[in-house]
Amino acid sequence: MKKSNWILLTTILVITSAMLFFAFSYKMEVDSMGDDITAIKEVLNQYAVGCNTGDFDLWISLWTDDGVQMPPDSPARVGKEQIREAMKPAFDQMNLDITITSIEDAKVYGDLGFIRCTYTLKITPKAGGETINAMPDGKDLSLYERQSDGSWKIIYDCFNSNTPPK
Amino acid sequence: MKKSNWILLTTILVITSAMLFFAFSYKMEVDSMGDDITAIKEVLNQYAVGCNTGDFDLWISLWTDDGVQMPPDSPARVGKEQIREAMKPAFDQMNLDITITSIEDAKVYGDLGFIRCTYTLKITPKAGGETINAMPDGKDLSLYERQSDGSWKIIYDCFNSNTPPK
Repeated sequence: MKKSNWILLTTILVITSAMLFFAFSYKMEVDSMGDDITAIKEVLNQYAVGCNTGDFDLWISLWTDDGVQMPPDSPARVGKEQIREAMKPAFDQMNLDITITSIEDAKVYGDLGFIRCTYTLKITPKAGGETINAMPDGKDLSLYERQSDGSWKIIYDCFNSNTPPK
Repeated sequence: MKKSNWILLTTILVITSAMLFFAFSYKMEVDSMGDDITAIKEVLNQYAVGCNTGDFDLWISLWTDDGVQMPPDSPARVGKEQIREAMKPAFDQMNLDITITSIEDAKVYGDLGFIRCTYTLKITPKAGGETINAMPDGKDLSLYERQSDGSWKIIYDCFNSNTPPK
């Protein structure tokens, strides 16, 4: 074979290998997108499990250190410590009953994902007393960030009611 | 030069070119991130400009066709037509005065960006009447998606009050 043919052949081989590598990476990325959506939905599910079993440690572990909770009619809670301070008493004093009634949308863009859902929340004082329909019909927009260990955590959670206050 | 040396040289050249190409792409990406954050902040600014000048066409143009507005104490408005139907009467009947009081966070991950901000909203009936402090202290989480033409549009907007209802 002539020298120029060898150069051509080598170049083609290197370029083909590079193309295969990037095509494979792209396919891996597309495949993992479905897994990522499943993963952020599972974080939302664990959010409800944490509430409904009174497992505050599980619930708070779902947040990043700089996560921000944005509840209605109350200032934002910025960072895990503010969220802990605001929410620990609720877990201590109440039995929470949260139901994710519908996941309306869930998408992942690289290392950021979001879910829009609707939910209901009932609370019952542990000391006794009637169950309160705290959120008869709520909606929620939550953002999730992929962590360095591959897990997903909540970075933002903003929610409000679908119905006017009584 | 020997044939094997030509092969080696060609391989090195092709690999070096590929590495330079990807390093350059990465630098472009990092450089463009700051521009993207500026761009989504400008969409938020135009949101306020649209409200404050009564320019409904400008305001509605900032949304994607399947954008979702999530106002407090009211169901989500899903898609530009529902948003138009809900918001056009407000623009027709009221002078709006919205102020973005603080941008607390703004980030872009690939083709998705978000802003957390605080704002105030005053409304004055065009027919006459007192100005109402519709949102004396509000907070907002908005998501922006990069469009195929490179522009950014709002895909989600969820907001609520920092203070209890009176």
